Amino acid sequence: MIKASEDNEYYILTSPTILPKASGFLWNEKMMIQLNCRGYATSQFMQPEPAKYSHAPNLEAKSFMQPEQPYYAHHPGRFVYVKDETNGRIFSAPYEPVRAHADRYTFAVGKHRIVWNTESDGVAVEMSLSLPTEDAIELWRIKVKNVSTSKRNISVYPYFTVGYMSWMNQSAEYNEDLQAMVCSSITPYQKYKEYDKIKLLKDKTYLLAEQKPYAWEASQEAFEGEGGLARPSAIENEALSNGDARYEMPLAVLQYRMELEAGEEREYRFLFGPAKDEDEIAQIRQTYFTATYANSENGFDKAEREYAEYVSEGQGCLEIRTPDADFDNIINHWLPRQMYYHGKTNRLTTDPQTRNYLQDHMGMSYIKPLIARGSFLTALSQQNADGGMPDGILLHEEAELKYINQVPHADHNVWLPICINAYLDETNDYSLLDEKVPFADSEELVTVSEHIDRAMQYLMKDRDERGLNYIHQGDWCDPMNMVGVRGKGVSGWLTIATAYAFNVWAGISEASGRLEAGKAFRLAAEETNAVVNRYLWDGDWYIRGITDDNVAFGVKEDKEGRIFINPQGWALLSGAADEEKKEKLIRSVEEQLETPYGVEKLAPSYTAMREDVGRVTQKHPGSAENGAVYNHAAAFYIFGLYAVGEKDNAYRLLRKMIPGPNHEDIVRRGQLPVYIPNYYRGAYHQFPRTAGRSSHLFNTGTVAWVYRCLIDGLFGLQGSPAGLQIKPQLPTHWQEAAVKREFRGARLTIEMKRDASVQATEVYLNGELVESGVLERLQSGAEYEVLVKLPQQ
Amino acid sequence: MIKASEDNEYYILTSPTILPKASGFLWNEKMMIQLNCRGYATSQFMQPEPAKYSHAPNLEAKSFMQPEQPYYAHHPGRFVYVKDETNGRIFSAPYEPVRAHADRYTFAVGKHRIVWNTESDGVAVEMSLSLPTEDAIELWRIKVKNVSTSKRNISVYPYFTVGYMSWMNQSAEYNEDLQAMVCSSITPYQKYKEYDKIKLLKDKTYLLAEQKPYAWEASQEAFEGEGGLARPSAIENEALSNGDARYEMPLAVLQYRMELEAGEEREYRFLFGPAKDEDEIAQIRQTYFTATYANSENGFDKAEREYAEYVSEGQGCLEIRTPDADFDNIINHWLPRQMYYHGKTNRLTTDPQTRNYLQDHMGMSYIKPLIARGSFLTALSQQNADGGMPDGILLHEEAELKYINQVPHADHNVWLPICINAYLDETNDYSLLDEKVPFADSEELVTVSEHIDRAMQYLMKDRDERGLNYIHQGDWCDPMNMVGVRGKGVSGWLTIATAYAFNVWAGISEASGRLEAGKAFRLAAEETNAVVNRYLWDGDWYIRGITDDNVAFGVKEDKEGRIFINPQGWALLSGAADEEKKEKLIRSVEEQLETPYGVEKLAPSYTAMREDVGRVTQKHPGSAENGAVYNHAAAFYIFGLYAVGEKDNAYRLLRKMIPGPNHEDIVRRGQLPVYIPNYYRGAYHQFPRTAGRSSHLFNTGTVAWVYRCLIDGLFGLQGSPAGLQIKPQLPTHWQEAAVKREFRGARLTIEMKRDASVQATEVYLNGELVESGVLERLQSGAEYEVLVKLPQQ
Repeated sequence: MIKASEDNEYYILTSPTILPKASGFLWNEKMMIQLNCRGYATSQFMQPEPAKYSHAPNLEAKSFMQPEQPYYAHHPGRFVYVKDETNGRIFSAPYEPVRAHADRYTFAVGKHRIVWNTESDGVAVEMSLSLPTEDAIELWRIKVKNVSTSKRNISVYPYFTVGYMSWMNQSAEYNEDLQAMVCSSITPYQKYKEYDKIKLLKDKTYLLAEQKPYAWEASQEAFEGEGGLARPSAIENEALSNGDARYEMPLAVLQYRMELEAGEEREYRFLFGPAKDEDEIAQIRQTYFTATYANSENGFDKAEREYAEYVSEGQGCLEIRTPDADFDNIINHWLPRQMYYHGKTNRLTTDPQTRNYLQDHMGMSYIKPLIARGSFLTALSQQNADGGMPDGILLHEEAELKYINQVPHADHNVWLPICINAYLDETNDYSLLDEKVPFADSEELVTVSEHIDRAMQYLMKDRDERGLNYIHQGDWCDPMNMVGVRGKGVSGWLTIATAYAFNVWAGISEASGRLEAGKAFRLAAEETNAVVNRYLWDGDWYIRGITDDNVAFGVKEDKEGRIFINPQGWALLSGAADEEKKEKLIRSVEEQLETPYGVEKLAPSYTAMREDVGRVTQKHPGSAENGAVYNHAAAFYIFGLYAVGEKDNAYRLLRKMIPGPNHEDIVRRGQLPVYIPNYYRGAYHQFPRTAGRSSHLFNTGTVAWVYRCLIDGLFGLQGSPAGLQIKPQLPTHWQEAAVKREFRGARLTIEMKRDASVQATEVYLNGELVESGVLERLQSGAEYEVLVKLPQQ
Repeated sequence: MIKASEDNEYYILTSPTILPKASGFLWNEKMMIQLNCRGYATSQFMQPEPAKYSHAPNLEAKSFMQPEQPYYAHHPGRFVYVKDETNGRIFSAPYEPVRAHADRYTFAVGKHRIVWNTESDGVAVEMSLSLPTEDAIELWRIKVKNVSTSKRNISVYPYFTVGYMSWMNQSAEYNEDLQAMVCSSITPYQKYKEYDKIKLLKDKTYLLAEQKPYAWEASQEAFEGEGGLARPSAIENEALSNGDARYEMPLAVLQYRMELEAGEEREYRFLFGPAKDEDEIAQIRQTYFTATYANSENGFDKAEREYAEYVSEGQGCLEIRTPDADFDNIINHWLPRQMYYHGKTNRLTTDPQTRNYLQDHMGMSYIKPLIARGSFLTALSQQNADGGMPDGILLHEEAELKYINQVPHADHNVWLPICINAYLDETNDYSLLDEKVPFADSEELVTVSEHIDRAMQYLMKDRDERGLNYIHQGDWCDPMNMVGVRGKGVSGWLTIATAYAFNVWAGISEASGRLEAGKAFRLAAEETNAVVNRYLWDGDWYIRGITDDNVAFGVKEDKEGRIFINPQGWALLSGAADEEKKEKLIRSVEEQLETPYGVEKLAPSYTAMREDVGRVTQKHPGSAENGAVYNHAAAFYIFGLYAVGEKDNAYRLLRKMIPGPNHEDIVRRGQLPVYIPNYYRGAYHQFPRTAGRSSHLFNTGTVAWVYRCLIDGLFGLQGSPAGLQIKPQLPTHWQEAAVKREFRGARLTIEMKRDASVQATEVYLNGELVESGVLERLQSGAEYEVLVKLPQQ
């Protein structure tokens, strides 16, 4: 069974097999952990680069998160073995590694806690994980209860994998003073200058126990023996051997022996994480297990409480009640949480891609606008004086641009006005534009307005003789890295996006009293749209680009990569598409890109490299960058649909993005509806068997855009300098919706109802008709009742 | 049971559990595969960098070979599942993944074939692997036999793991035309310039079947289902589903259904390996499965035969029969094979470390001297005109210095005369010295003699005011990278080794008629030895070095790293140690470094970083670079012992290096005695439980030195300009030994016997006493009988 708990604090799965990859995740300032319903875990912490403390059995590549990867038998995890000392029977919680039949099983993904309950043969095990807000530490509670009617004699073995820490050296031993398993390694290095960094790393992994164990084992091999993971040989004995690991693969497994009367329960608590040395582990024990406070709350309880508070600060500015309860649940509870994660952690990178950083803080504008404000200023302080934005924003003094951020992309500038626009709408904080900020390559202090002016002027110049924007080694679409590598190829999408950015910046300039600038950018947008229509319209849709060799692609003649979603959605935003083009392109998207699981990024998927259109991944149809339902791009398109009033098309596609209209759909997607993944497998027409499967990756620019679609589009509750503009675009089949909206400190309770008596939307504030539909002079701290009457269509 | 086969073609283990990591290996011009007794495999092929085609389930780091790593459930492997279709019983050959009890089991490591025989429940499976000489292809035979007394209805599933090929894209499908499972991926890249290399990579993995399968499965997940590796769910069905893999983890498993009469046997053959595309796979099928020859031998049989011939070319120049049969077996059969592997493959690198390359070809001098000659010239052509040798030798036009070869090491020059000396002894080919060779940084063509003169002069200059050689960022001991990073620290070992190199080069110069040069280098050696004794003698042994801060280390006062083996052995070679020092240092080594499993590299092992003596790995006592029995260093020491006539000490330590004096020792080491590993776990006094365990890594400079110890030392059959000098140093307890020696084309049959009637060694050639002990004017192609009478002591 798959369902939300009644208080909507949890999403619940009652079997580990129907969604074998279902997972939830938790994060704090220093770490992230993704937990799978079977007990598998992927965790990272920052020092400042992401690092592991629970490793795969083979040496893991330092690479991106890969949650779509298959799990395998020795995948890192957190498990509990239970042995009945009377009859020798064994099971494990939550499910792996033994995979025994459970009489009862639940996997509950909470917002600040993840809990499994596993009951087998009269013994119930509850495992739950929380985190502190600041430290990279897992806080585990393990409860064991005799749910049978007779006394039971059992051993319980918390089994926390440590894995292959280092090919150079690794060891583990139980430290009786610390009451902790301490696993040690040293990060190898080859160039002596690396040593100064490496010697500071937290290379140890510990499992700290609140209760003294009966016995322990520190070596993976010694523990498993011939029995393997399913029936570890060490468990056959009355007691673990209290062994150590010397160069062997470390493991943290403890044994607790207990006699439980019928109904009796015991609770054990553990801390698991990385540390530099034993002193740090001792300090952690002191803080979490032995410190007491005036209110007699110990450090562990306090950390759990504070973490719950911390997470609950990530509230959105909307609370909805619509005819679609599944939709309400993710919008009210999970979507703001996912946005908050992005804004708080910047995806656990020290050099987020500039476009990601700006869009993540566009989302943060709805939750913690002050954080968004600071981030926009940080980004602008890394702009070059010529107006060009860097490929990534450095967030740590030792950070450097890595991986894809070493490849020059052409689109970073366009995101500035677009993302800041949402912040201004929400806050009306136009003082941001007057802040003075330096450049990366110049001490010159200029206003934010001037910074963005230069960014826009940079885009005006970075064009060919036709007025089309160069693509260089890529734009929003990373893999398209050889379209314009020789300096001639242009991006259709980027040219269209530039027109939109100009329009947005014109609007902001006008609103901030810079009328001349506004006029100039409005004109630039018009000129750009004219160029777009001259060179990029292919008869039924806009093309994706033109290569160094002057080959247009994303055109009717192409057998593969015939149509791309991005130019279509952005042409709706930029104003390039007139009524006729709009209708044609919407029909083309529907016919060629829409699938039961959303809109594909391009179609048909590439099956081989086109040497004249450089891409990295097209050989695999349905891969992330090729034919997948890439939700980020789909969200742009939906936002474009709302911009032109296509409310039913927009809602239909929005709904396809969210897993969980029904049980069958959740199973097909393969994940609980507690986050929107960056993509679903696509190539629907080529490979229907796998289409729709979730990537399981919750890092995605999608979420900020979905929220903006709700604010600006679906519920039409967008801010403006004048106030709150009410212009809902509820889908035709919705008769009503109720929304609570936090706006600039005011709290509005809004009823939206279809009313056969109105021909156009009518807005009533505390019972009085507001002709403009714009609620002005709302007071911070005040509460308002709003009624919106909508026409039937 | 662990034993050599009667014909010594195989070493045989009859249980998979007593040596769970036991392995053998095969190689050819393009690839290497290490096979474990349970079916696990680690394979690499060259294109030109080492690459994988059978991957770990998690993304593997591109790293060094790590055979000491623990195997885990989903480790890559080659297996066969067998299902009885009547009763549903399943087992797997050779052992993993099912781990069922076998009624019979053997793992036979042959020189050109590795064979398992597994019998369970009346069905016998024989799996055997060979390779072709040139192609990166595994040649598999799988025989299935009904050894019960009644007719059997079974399914047989060859199960070849492919694993997690790429996080970017992966797929697999059975190609009916090719009769092959074809698994596809694309190596990801980020910088567009990498594409030109990447597009040529062999990114596909295939399993080509000679016999058409009944059914197949291409997805790891679909195959395993809930049953997991131990009882894959797909096997429960009558037929595999003929599924494909789309982004899922690829797998190559085929099903053959058969009815076997009692005693009936079937054989199936397969090819497994990497390919660029389907055309290449088709070509491979054509070559190995369908081509016929005049003698009706097909490509598969031909390849097996040619490979056996290829391997058999790797014969040494010694064949011994001594009182120690285990010793004879490894010396006659496995040691030359291991040396040949080094000389043929250069350890599967494109940039072997210079010292490794030179020493590996020192070993090749005894097998294929022409290859060694070419390699010495290759190395010298990469020397700089100032005499300095590079850190690595580039063997491919696209190769570059990587990893440790980017760290400047000070010792590469010393190996030139030392390694070439062995070549000259063996071949008398002094024409090598007159070959003209350019420099890396100069077109200037000068003779090999001049090249080596410059290398020696470089060493004379690269010294401090005391005359001690700078260590810079390391010498033979890689991790000691911060001893002299500021340009002042010196290496005790390197200074001593330089004295030895000068002496060797003086001898070669004299022998080649360059008497003045010989005199000069002899003098330089004497002066260096004097410096050594002035600054490096610590009272009972030679110190290891002096840091930038003028701190001597490897000294009595040190609590850790008190004594290092290398300065001691080389002081015996260089002539630095007089009688008194010799006795003292030999006693010190025996007391402080000798263990039941050999001589440790240093003792006591470091337990923490000494900031004034930079090392990377000392925190883990017993790790490779810290306290292990590092066989390469031990071999130097043994060579030094022979140089000073310490025959019993030398033999005792030599014997400890070779696994297999007895069953218990083999089990303790954890490997079959088919190669000498680079090290055994050390730190014997700290951690006796794990001491002696094999690293399982067969890449090691050890083997060439062991062979040289046999030639120059133990059997005393060293070449010289005059001929073959006979000066055996049999251990006192050996009464006799018989040796066949190939020398410059002559074949000598040598009997060595203790004879109470002689006071000194007497040599008889074809019955005539040779006073000098040097056999002169031996004719190539001729056979000689030699009798050596040895005194009792």
